[in-house]
Amino acid sequence: MSPAVIDHPYVPRDLILPGFVPCVTSIGRILAVYGFSSIAGVFLVWILSGLSPKLTKMDRTLMCWWLFTGLTHMIIEGYFVFSPEFFAKESPMILSEIWKEYGKGDSRYVSRDSAVVSVEGITAVLTGPASFLSLYAIWTRKPYSYTIQFAASLAQLYGCLVYFLTSYLDGDNFYTSRYYYWAYYITANAFWVVIPTLISIRCWNKISSSSIQSNKNKKNI
Amino acid sequence: MSPAVIDHPYVPRDLILPGFVPCVTSIGRILAVYGFSSIAGVFLVWILSGLSPKLTKMDRTLMCWWLFTGLTHMIIEGYFVFSPEFFAKESPMILSEIWKEYGKGDSRYVSRDSAVVSVEGITAVLTGPASFLSLYAIWTRKPYSYTIQFAASLAQLYGCLVYFLTSYLDGDNFYTSRYYYWAYYITANAFWVVIPTLISIRCWNKISSSSIQSNKNKKNI
Repeated sequence: MSPAVIDHPYVPRDLILPGFVPCVTSIGRILAVYGFSSIAGVFLVWILSGLSPKLTKMDRTLMCWWLFTGLTHMIIEGYFVFSPEFFAKESPMILSEIWKEYGKGDSRYVSRDSAVVSVEGITAVLTGPASFLSLYAIWTRKPYSYTIQFAASLAQLYGCLVYFLTSYLDGDNFYTSRYYYWAYYITANAFWVVIPTLISIRCWNKISSSSIQSNKNKKNI
Repeated sequence: MSPAVIDHPYVPRDLILPGFVPCVTSIGRILAVYGFSSIAGVFLVWILSGLSPKLTKMDRTLMCWWLFTGLTHMIIEGYFVFSPEFFAKESPMILSEIWKEYGKGDSRYVSRDSAVVSVEGITAVLTGPASFLSLYAIWTRKPYSYTIQFAASLAQLYGCLVYFLTSYLDGDNFYTSRYYYWAYYITANAFWVVIPTLISIRCWNKISSSSIQSNKNKKNI
């Protein structure tokens, strides 16, 4: 083995990662930092939005989701997109540690698969800001509130579809063990399939009923 | 050269395509068949939709677009998705000839790149039917008319983004000459960037104004 080639846990096993530094942060600690930061942000949005009497509990719950997903897209996924050599980061920084750990469930992140980088790039640069715009639109009751939520949710769903389909077509073999496959690749991503699906359906219905209402109004005039 | 390896025009030059049969149909003939079938369909929709006095010229133009793009997605792109060995088709069948020819502008179609197959799969199986639903929704003035058009257009835009980004990240070198790059890869796809962008903006505005109208109505009640 040449000095530049350091052993790593990822798939394929012959993947060359010059200067690879293993993840030294436990998954418990990663989840604690991610969870605590998210809960702190969500708590703040929940409290502040409670000051506005016009917002329903559903509005406020959705605002919390858009904050959580927007932060995840822009900070965590944004870091991945613009840090191609995260696997060589020496000091244990939480963002690089997250991706070193997640790579055990999908090593395409470490090998910088172009489909993964493209989807994550779109998610970080477009869907992230769209998530914050959704939060703002609900808060300020903008007329495009459902439209932007619908767009952001569809983008999340399309991203997930490309993500899973490319993996399937390339052999569905980018995990270091079945545990990581189910815990990271399937379970972690399932949130971004289930929640955007529910929000899309809700937005579809809201927009349609608003259109019916608007047409009735025109007829009455 | 082994008997199974037949010379082809695609990139990378060392791509192995067992049983490859060259495209024997001229681009003029391909465009004539594609153009004539499309114009025939569009003409039919234009005439039939003209019988409905409630439909504006813009509605009818959009219906023509949704027919054209829906047929392209389901028939042409659908054929590609479910015919992995189109390059070996011996009898000159127009659908396989289209992809043999288009492969000169983007050889990832011939090498069956997983990002291309995924995007085309989503386009053929989901965006195609959504295009026909858009046509139907405009025709029958369904309350979800703008919603489905918005969703289908966003899917087309997301697909184009993944399509161009993956190529860029993989070296942007899948064309057999600059002519094919600009004529097929850039120009042909530009329609699916420009038109969905315009439709998305229109739908966004229509949905938002419908929401304002609906809110005013609620206040008046």
